[in-house]
Amino acid sequence: MPQSDTVNRQWILNRRPKGEPDADTLKLIETDVPQPGPGEMLLRAEYLSLDPYMRGRMSDAPSYAEPVEIGGVMVGGTVSRVVASQLDGFAEGDWVLNFGGWQDYTLSDGTEVTNLGKNPDNPSWALGALGMPGLTAWAGLTKIGQPKPGETIAVAAATGPVGATVGQIGKILGCRVVGIAGGPEKCSYAVETLGFDACIDHKADNLKENLAEATPDGIDVYFENVGGKVLNAVLPRLNDHARIPVCGLVSQYNATSLPDGPDRLNWLMSQILIKRMTLRGFIVFEEFGQYYNEFASEVGGWIRDGKLHYREEVIDGLENAPNAFAGLLRGENFGKRVIRLGKD
Amino acid sequence: MPQSDTVNRQWILNRRPKGEPDADTLKLIETDVPQPGPGEMLLRAEYLSLDPYMRGRMSDAPSYAEPVEIGGVMVGGTVSRVVASQLDGFAEGDWVLNFGGWQDYTLSDGTEVTNLGKNPDNPSWALGALGMPGLTAWAGLTKIGQPKPGETIAVAAATGPVGATVGQIGKILGCRVVGIAGGPEKCSYAVETLGFDACIDHKADNLKENLAEATPDGIDVYFENVGGKVLNAVLPRLNDHARIPVCGLVSQYNATSLPDGPDRLNWLMSQILIKRMTLRGFIVFEEFGQYYNEFASEVGGWIRDGKLHYREEVIDGLENAPNAFAGLLRGENFGKRVIRLGKD
Repeated sequence: MPQSDTVNRQWILNRRPKGEPDADTLKLIETDVPQPGPGEMLLRAEYLSLDPYMRGRMSDAPSYAEPVEIGGVMVGGTVSRVVASQLDGFAEGDWVLNFGGWQDYTLSDGTEVTNLGKNPDNPSWALGALGMPGLTAWAGLTKIGQPKPGETIAVAAATGPVGATVGQIGKILGCRVVGIAGGPEKCSYAVETLGFDACIDHKADNLKENLAEATPDGIDVYFENVGGKVLNAVLPRLNDHARIPVCGLVSQYNATSLPDGPDRLNWLMSQILIKRMTLRGFIVFEEFGQYYNEFASEVGGWIRDGKLHYREEVIDGLENAPNAFAGLLRGENFGKRVIRLGKD
Repeated sequence: MPQSDTVNRQWILNRRPKGEPDADTLKLIETDVPQPGPGEMLLRAEYLSLDPYMRGRMSDAPSYAEPVEIGGVMVGGTVSRVVASQLDGFAEGDWVLNFGGWQDYTLSDGTEVTNLGKNPDNPSWALGALGMPGLTAWAGLTKIGQPKPGETIAVAAATGPVGATVGQIGKILGCRVVGIAGGPEKCSYAVETLGFDACIDHKADNLKENLAEATPDGIDVYFENVGGKVLNAVLPRLNDHARIPVCGLVSQYNATSLPDGPDRLNWLMSQILIKRMTLRGFIVFEEFGQYYNEFASEVGGWIRDGKLHYREEVIDGLENAPNAFAGLLRGENFGKRVIRLGKD
């Protein structure tokens, strides 16, 4: 079924999937090839990227992006060629990176289209290592993960476009890199070709034990692509101040379970991703001791000016401290509870 | 049982508690008052702070701080007076902030002791609003929570020393502040005295519904002191880009359950706290689009120089996209999967 000059084949969303997408989820239809008007160009897709995020677009659960409507063309990144152009800066035959979706032809006014030129090397790479997955890997690792030389990076989906880039950048930056991938073939590719220090097969037994053995100094950066059992194996290995760029949770995209069951942890992780939240534990003096004077001056002023109330509960007698403390854990205190020692 | 000039009463850790601390957890003993040598001073505690973190010190579970040893004096922040000094900068009668623990007397060489002077106003406040809890509230809210005017802040343990300070600073900064506290008395204090916009009683029915009603625009900053059912009620209300300074999880400090059950979510939150982790979801182009050129130049160079491999799986035929995508979600792909449209 080759591309035609007159027919535009489109995969439209036919039904929202429950769990794994099936044969009813998408439907192939044929429409006419549109004609570009002034200020437009007609693009014919050469490459369509497939990425896990697309599962999210099939669902109407709340997320950071609008879902595809029923009957709408599935979205996706594409590398296309210009068939006809009435638009400055784009000529017939140019290769472009666009977001044309799962179809042969799109009209475009040039918005969010990158011209790759007449004869690019490896144009499809603009959908991978030099495109969204590559940028995801690079930015997530260097801007959020911020690995230091000698640290250990764990990467799930280690041979995927994101994971492979993450792990290799980690090696370039002087880190120990441990991948997690499905099957011995992927694992040996990660070690032998990509240069990872180790790669654990999550389909084999003893995932936790094998990961522990491969990370003798723990894990400093976990690049989260997967969730599920990989996350469960990683969690106990995380070092203090571990950084987890939450990039994807592919093991959960087909999940249909309710968030109140044992999957609540994965649900939290999904929320962190979907809502781009920051969760960050802190120990006050470890990070913020240097702000003490600024704090004391500002808050002290607010108290002095009556803008900030402070309530305390003074309990006399050191001997009463254990009961007072037990009550504190039960929430019986009302304000800051302190023991006064000198007045009994 | 007043303070004595010759006896040093000490609460020592007698047995590590399982669940809630009980009468066997701590034991009161009496020892001699120590004598300061050259370069030392003798401090007599006036105020001992009680704080939820102390529960952690009773336990030998891994945490950011060493546990108190069995037989050791319980740790804690104190406001003390100098009884005798052979140390420059500290004279008899001075008030000091120190970390003397649960006992009357301590010797000190001045390390980590703050001199509060001869006659400070409200010396005990150095254990509260002007001390560790206050700094915790201020730094956690302003440096991590980073609320903007008009945003909604939710604060658990709303009338505790941290929560009350958080909420009031939130009001000063122009935010809507919703507290969560135990019982009608605390709630009316939060609203009427502290000036919170609302306060939800977590002991009443309908916590989730009441919180939803009090946060019509969702929650932008959740200052986490509590965990448990409060966290569960807060999670669905969190807005995109919500920030959660994870400061404490007092509802969980007595927990004895295993992390593999339905409490795994709370366990994750504990880990974030204990390990000072950063979890942060991100959407690559939303945050990192401006780095595209830097990224492309750096990664492109690594690929050119053979330092970075890139593998893709080219599948011909748009018609094959759904199956190829379903396989991707099952992990059948090996490298970056792309559909090639023009070659079939």
